[in-house]
Amino acid sequence: MTILADPATAVQLPAAEAAVLYAEVQQFYARQMQLLDLNEPQRWAGTFTEDATFDVPTLPEPVRGRSALIASTTRAHAQLAGSGEQHRHVIGMLDVRPQQDGTVHVRSYAVVYASTVGKDSRVHRVCVCEDVLVRDAGELQVAARRVTRDDLA
Amino acid sequence: MTILADPATAVQLPAAEAAVLYAEVQQFYARQMQLLDLNEPQRWAGTFTEDATFDVPTLPEPVRGRSALIASTTRAHAQLAGSGEQHRHVIGMLDVRPQQDGTVHVRSYAVVYASTVGKDSRVHRVCVCEDVLVRDAGELQVAARRVTRDDLA
Amino acid sequence: MTILADPATAVQLPAAEAAVLYAEVQQFYARQMQLLDLNEPQRWAGTFTEDATFDVPTLPEPVRGRSALIASTTRAHAQLAGSGEQHRHVIGMLDVRPQQDGTVHVRSYAVVYASTVGKDSRVHRVCVCEDVLVRDAGELQVAARRVTRDDLA
Repeated sequence: MTILADPATAVQLPAAEAAVLYAEVQQFYARQMQLLDLNEPQRWAGTFTEDATFDVPTLPEPVRGRSALIASTTRAHAQLAGSGEQHRHVIGMLDVRPQQDGTVHVRSYAVVYASTVGKDSRVHRVCVCEDVLVRDAGELQVAARRVTRDDLA
Repeated sequence: MTILADPATAVQLPAAEAAVLYAEVQQFYARQMQLLDLNEPQRWAGTFTEDATFDVPTLPEPVRGRSALIASTTRAHAQLAGSGEQHRHVIGMLDVRPQQDGTVHVRSYAVVYASTVGKDSRVHRVCVCEDVLVRDAGELQVAARRVTRDDLA
Repeated sequence: MTILADPATAVQLPAAEAAVLYAEVQQFYARQMQLLDLNEPQRWAGTFTEDATFDVPTLPEPVRGRSALIASTTRAHAQLAGSGEQHRHVIGMLDVRPQQDGTVHVRSYAVVYASTVGKDSRVHRVCVCEDVLVRDAGELQVAARRVTRDDLA
């Protein structure tokens, strides 16, 4: 899933169609990240396909499927609540590449901010997020996600 | 004004209309935040309705109306100038929800960066911004804004 | 090139056309910044016109032309690699103003994040970026860029 390496399979949409897709993708990420930060694991997992894979550098192998995603994010949120931190995930610089097979590849930056009541807010993580998006009944879903962190080798 | 809690009143626009609205809302916030950071209180206040409310956690009650907004932001900017800091307000992750009543609800993240000449730049605040947008002669305006800060309980 | 000071020359596009342009500009910056951070100097320089000018506060005079841009960014990247830092450039709050002469003026915020393996990530720079964009065979390119840094007088 090396997205930028394969521009050969990207489709050049007419500008008007590309604009509709670009807005749709931005709105998709806005809602997905807000659901994550609001600790809505079921609704958040609903933005992935049933058998989605989520590859992060801190786990030995990719998380696979919605129930595993729910379990994983519920655990992460419990830890976070214990630490008293509020996280906000902000996606930016979305490079949106519709593919010949109907999927949409997106490479973006994800900056995670952390705040604790009574203390300064700060940058927690800077990540690169590579997604394969598909449609289910018209709605975008993540079929595969790979996240890398700039502070890890 | 709990926006995410009432999806029942949100309207599902056709994708092309939703895209036009999404871009319009992004452009609106870009200009509004730049006017704030450029210290243009009158023009900034012009992006709110005449009787807009602005609810922030650091004030005992919401600011109401353009002249109060101008007074409030002029005061805040004088303090900021005294401290030698330049702030930049960056809105991201816009969840844009057009409503049946013609208003547009937007829940977004606002990250404020602070810089001082000769020192490092840093994250100053991480906020959630919930807006009710309306139209006046076609132009978007904020009718009601509620900001919460992640570093306050 | 004081963009905000001359709204007289800005064109008011119909909302649908403005939305297409807004998405196109966002996609343009996403790819341009990713190419910079991926250390692809040639492809990055290809997002500028042949004779583009790039005015930054840390150089005595603007960089002019693609080969100078390639040399300048290659030098900067070698320094960065030596320091062990990974930078990510994130453009936000894009105020997009199409002009009567067919160019597109964009004033935006650029936040640069820095990460080092094994250490915290952090805000490196907060900048204002003012661009004049033109089209070459339909594709956007930067004809002139002026960057100012909030931590410099």
